[in-house]
Amino acid sequence: MTVTGFTRYPPFIDDLARSESGRLLRAELERRWPETTDQLVTIARYALLPAGKLLRPMMTLHAAEAVGGSPSAVLPAALGMEYLHVATLVHDDIIDADTLRRGRPAVPVAFGIPDAIVVGDHLIFTAFQSIVEVGATAPPGQVAAAVAALAEAGRDLCRGQLLETQLVGDLDAGAQWYPEMIRLKTGALFRAVCHVGALLGGADPQLAAGLARYGEHLGIAFQIRDDLLSYVATPEQTGKPATSDLNNGRPTLPLLLAYDTATDTARVELMAVLHRRGAGPGDVEWVAGLLAEVDAVRDARRQMVEHAERALAELSPLTPSPSVDVLAGIAHWMTSETA
Amino acid sequence: MTVTGFTRYPPFIDDLARSESGRLLRAELERRWPETTDQLVTIARYALLPAGKLLRPMMTLHAAEAVGGSPSAVLPAALGMEYLHVATLVHDDIIDADTLRRGRPAVPVAFGIPDAIVVGDHLIFTAFQSIVEVGATAPPGQVAAAVAALAEAGRDLCRGQLLETQLVGDLDAGAQWYPEMIRLKTGALFRAVCHVGALLGGADPQLAAGLARYGEHLGIAFQIRDDLLSYVATPEQTGKPATSDLNNGRPTLPLLLAYDTATDTARVELMAVLHRRGAGPGDVEWVAGLLAEVDAVRDARRQMVEHAERALAELSPLTPSPSVDVLAGIAHWMTSETA
Repeated sequence: MTVTGFTRYPPFIDDLARSESGRLLRAELERRWPETTDQLVTIARYALLPAGKLLRPMMTLHAAEAVGGSPSAVLPAALGMEYLHVATLVHDDIIDADTLRRGRPAVPVAFGIPDAIVVGDHLIFTAFQSIVEVGATAPPGQVAAAVAALAEAGRDLCRGQLLETQLVGDLDAGAQWYPEMIRLKTGALFRAVCHVGALLGGADPQLAAGLARYGEHLGIAFQIRDDLLSYVATPEQTGKPATSDLNNGRPTLPLLLAYDTATDTARVELMAVLHRRGAGPGDVEWVAGLLAEVDAVRDARRQMVEHAERALAELSPLTPSPSVDVLAGIAHWMTSETA
Repeated sequence: MTVTGFTRYPPFIDDLARSESGRLLRAELERRWPETTDQLVTIARYALLPAGKLLRPMMTLHAAEAVGGSPSAVLPAALGMEYLHVATLVHDDIIDADTLRRGRPAVPVAFGIPDAIVVGDHLIFTAFQSIVEVGATAPPGQVAAAVAALAEAGRDLCRGQLLETQLVGDLDAGAQWYPEMIRLKTGALFRAVCHVGALLGGADPQLAAGLARYGEHLGIAFQIRDDLLSYVATPEQTGKPATSDLNNGRPTLPLLLAYDTATDTARVELMAVLHRRGAGPGDVEWVAGLLAEVDAVRDARRQMVEHAERALAELSPLTPSPSVDVLAGIAHWMTSETA
């Protein structure tokens, strides 16, 4: 197993974050969520800024531009995608009792669970408001379709989250339900992010549906990548403790693949580690060793590449443009920069 | 202080719940959230059914009909109002650590906090989806306006919730911030409920704005009424322990009014009760006695009546109809059925 070069954000994504679109998004986040004495804005600002790589809103901007729309016109909706994403992180950190996020105390730790619930809700409502804001320039029919896409994604997200909770510690049921779980949990928001951008950018329903499928496959690939990172990247790279997934008993793809092919003894031990819910560094190393032994990382990576390639294929109906290149680049980044 | 006749749901509201609209709403809730083995639907069903008096969705139906719209066409949006309301109850029960709701274990108690967070989020997303569903018959411009109204109300709700948390145990700041707090916390959703109904019913912006103001005043009156119920109704009538507000240290209007006029000794004792966060029956009786002594209940009721009358006045531009009578009836119910 080669892990060289498997860093959290390789050059392509870093460059993208530093691009004009990235600067536009960060400036607008700063403008809309300023430093203030208002408690609600203060917590939301803490959750949103400093911004991550803004991959999701970036995809909204480029999906809009790829179909001939104006990125600046859809900017509020792109921010809305980040709001929804961050809202799920804030609520997830309560659900998973994770204490670190982006290398800092998670919102529930920094501000308490009650306020974290409320701020997450507030960001969800603001996401919908942000889509309606684009109605100043987009036809109302497209705004309504974008709201529908976002609402559907949000419902899927919740269903995926609940499914994940049900699968905790269960490597048997996990194998059966994993594909559906990550499609709902991560694929749905990536789908909406691209769908909303395409719709508000003026795409016809068929073209918008293609970009939605691009997003869904990319989201699935992204989740598998995230599953892999727990075992092949350092906490400094991921911004969360290496034991997080193990402590939560979460059936990630490498674990499921390892469980599927491991010896009976190893299967029993793997279940035991998951059920302990307090994995130490020794457990993480043992699990990483098992994954290497049964080629689980390689197999998980193969599935990731497959989804990234299916995402790429969905871009073929689009007229070539710098934005289409960026969308393709995100898919390539996933397939080429991980070893 | 006369408390005779001050019951949770006097005849008018009971009759309304048994009306054709009430039956329609309950039947549709049953159809959309059936008994199932699906965990998400099971929890949502537990939160939604058996339904309460469905006051909010009922107002959406009658607001739509009052402006000439079809109640059956806006039915999905009316259900959406109930989803949003129930979502806030589910999240509030986590925030307030309330264990009883409608006389049964609250959702976080029955299903755990993680699933309660997720199901609350799911109901919020479904509320937006329900509005878009009306787009099958309503013009997309009205759908977008309704989404905007709901998103704004949701944002206000969160701001009101956070403000309430900040005011806990603080009777000094409470007096200053109480009107804004209940306008945000309760007025906003009643406003949206009527605004959405009017917009999707086809009202012009001016008429819709009038119904929105009707809803906001009614919501404020409703919250004051709810504040009063803690002291003048039994737990059987309210469905929650009599000590709930006191335990939460919540500065309700009767408390704020009593604090304003009480002797220094009584003020100190009142603060002490709020800060104990574990009020016993003796405390409740002592507080009820203080409220009677300084006429706090009478004064709170006066403010409630004032808002109900302002709500009523907003109905005057509407052409008389049975639905306008129902909307007026709700306002009258508040002013006449409490002693």
